Amino acid sequence: MSNFDQIVQLIADDLAAVEARLTEETASEYSFVDMAVQHVVEGGGKRLRPILVVLSAKVCGYAGSDAHTLAAVVELIHVASLVHDDVLDEAAIRRGRETLHAKWGNKVAVLVGDYLHARVLSMLVSRRADDPAMAILADTTQAMCEGEVIHAYKSGDFDISEAEYLKIISFKTGKLITASCTLGAHLGTTDPKQIEALTVYGQQIGTAFQIVDDVLDFAENPDKLGKNTFGDLREGKLTFPIIYARSVCNEDEKQMLEKVLNPNTDETEAIAFVESLFQRYGVENYCLKVAQGYADRAKAALAILPQTDARLALQQLADYVVSRES
Amino acid sequence: MSNFDQIVQLIADDLAAVEARLTEETASEYSFVDMAVQHVVEGGGKRLRPILVVLSAKVCGYAGSDAHTLAAVVELIHVASLVHDDVLDEAAIRRGRETLHAKWGNKVAVLVGDYLHARVLSMLVSRRADDPAMAILADTTQAMCEGEVIHAYKSGDFDISEAEYLKIISFKTGKLITASCTLGAHLGTTDPKQIEALTVYGQQIGTAFQIVDDVLDFAENPDKLGKNTFGDLREGKLTFPIIYARSVCNEDEKQMLEKVLNPNTDETEAIAFVESLFQRYGVENYCLKVAQGYADRAKAALAILPQTDARLALQQLADYVVSRES
Repeated sequence: MSNFDQIVQLIADDLAAVEARLTEETASEYSFVDMAVQHVVEGGGKRLRPILVVLSAKVCGYAGSDAHTLAAVVELIHVASLVHDDVLDEAAIRRGRETLHAKWGNKVAVLVGDYLHARVLSMLVSRRADDPAMAILADTTQAMCEGEVIHAYKSGDFDISEAEYLKIISFKTGKLITASCTLGAHLGTTDPKQIEALTVYGQQIGTAFQIVDDVLDFAENPDKLGKNTFGDLREGKLTFPIIYARSVCNEDEKQMLEKVLNPNTDETEAIAFVESLFQRYGVENYCLKVAQGYADRAKAALAILPQTDARLALQQLADYVVSRES
Repeated sequence: MSNFDQIVQLIADDLAAVEARLTEETASEYSFVDMAVQHVVEGGGKRLRPILVVLSAKVCGYAGSDAHTLAAVVELIHVASLVHDDVLDEAAIRRGRETLHAKWGNKVAVLVGDYLHARVLSMLVSRRADDPAMAILADTTQAMCEGEVIHAYKSGDFDISEAEYLKIISFKTGKLITASCTLGAHLGTTDPKQIEALTVYGQQIGTAFQIVDDVLDFAENPDKLGKNTFGDLREGKLTFPIIYARSVCNEDEKQMLEKVLNPNTDETEAIAFVESLFQRYGVENYCLKVAQGYADRAKAALAILPQTDARLALQQLADYVVSRES
């Protein structure tokens, strides 16, 4: 059994409870709404964010059902962002299934994302006034949008630096992963050191996760990742491996790179050139090393937490984020 | 001075405070986000929903600044829905300005809508636990999405009944207008009768408002309404005047109507036929009479409220909703 499967097994009951919450909370009395929403919510995925909420709560000593609610909330925010992202990028495949967009059109995809946000609001209504969840999630959803808008705005900008890119992904991807850990921690403790430790852990694995996603985007077989290889790139959105490659290659290669990233270039030619460039400069290795650095810092942040199964699982999860193949 | 201008003048200070809140709350430290968001928020419109929050609060005896916050919240939810609606319908003109979609692309429009929802969440964070605003707005945003999804789903369904259509618009348009009144009422009173009176008022003018919107959609000059004439129709979304016309015309006209509503038909021909049909059956008059019925019921609901300037303004507003020309 892989490390990831072991982690899932450790908290199998919690994850089943989260799935039940997801189904229950997204049900609509209008059959068409229900069908469209269930289609995306049941779409699978690794449920990384719910796993983080549950494990972060557990490592801080909490084992109640509020972790399932918050886990469902962060997953719904994540699914809503994927659904809206599918509209934007017109990705034809997401997670190996037809996207909502391809199946029922842009209209419904935008609305289903909005519906999920409305459900999130409902799920937060009954929380105590001093509960930090609302503030954390308000800040998180805002940063996610800002990150997406800035990334869209920077489309076609070849001069984006590694630092600028890391900032964008800390917003787009990192914030919700971080929030998952912070929310879990708050359930179990008021100790600012423990909360900070899990927040740092989340920030670091969030960055590692996105860098590895960028690397996996170049995987030869689109089924493997369940995502359109090359999709973001051809839209002019540079990602970590390309930004690195561009920073180390020579002037001729730089010009050729800009040329092949233009959507009008033949895609086979583009892929062949990028692959040769990546091999020449060991781009994949470099990126995975950078990601492992983030994973290591994530693990180091856990040192002050009690040595429990949950902590061990969080450590293994940090490595899994880098070693995963999808 | 028109009745509407008099109403605006009566609460000019409040509306100025709402505008200030809108600008302040939607500011982003990221200049591109800021520019895109301000573009849509400053896009104008009549600020009907903020006016309703302020007047409903006033008629229940409240005159504090929380009305400005909630007025800004409902307006942001409204603007977010327009922005997402523009993406859906690819409307080229909205309120006489370029849509965000036409100006910067679908991506940014979807994200700006999401950003506005995130800001709404932030604005609600600090409210008291027993405050009803969160629950009302969660319910409202959910119903708005459900209404939109059902309307999109019913696209091209010529057999939609008047009752079904009224249900859809009570969700799409009515819920937020109703929420504006209910939220305002809650600020000033805990008397369930007063709250119910303003809720009924909101429901009735919400329906009147949408029926009149549907009628104005047939206005000859698109600049007048600042909206694409015929837009929804040609997408197969039936509206009130068409549903009525279809219910009273003969079999030949019914078939011709279905034919001209197909987007492949010549638009000039389509408009000419619909106009002739409307004149033959007095469709505009019928619709405006139905709308006036709703406005009258709205006014009647106000009877139990204290006779103040605010109540008079709400009465005038109900008539304005029907008599307006844009």
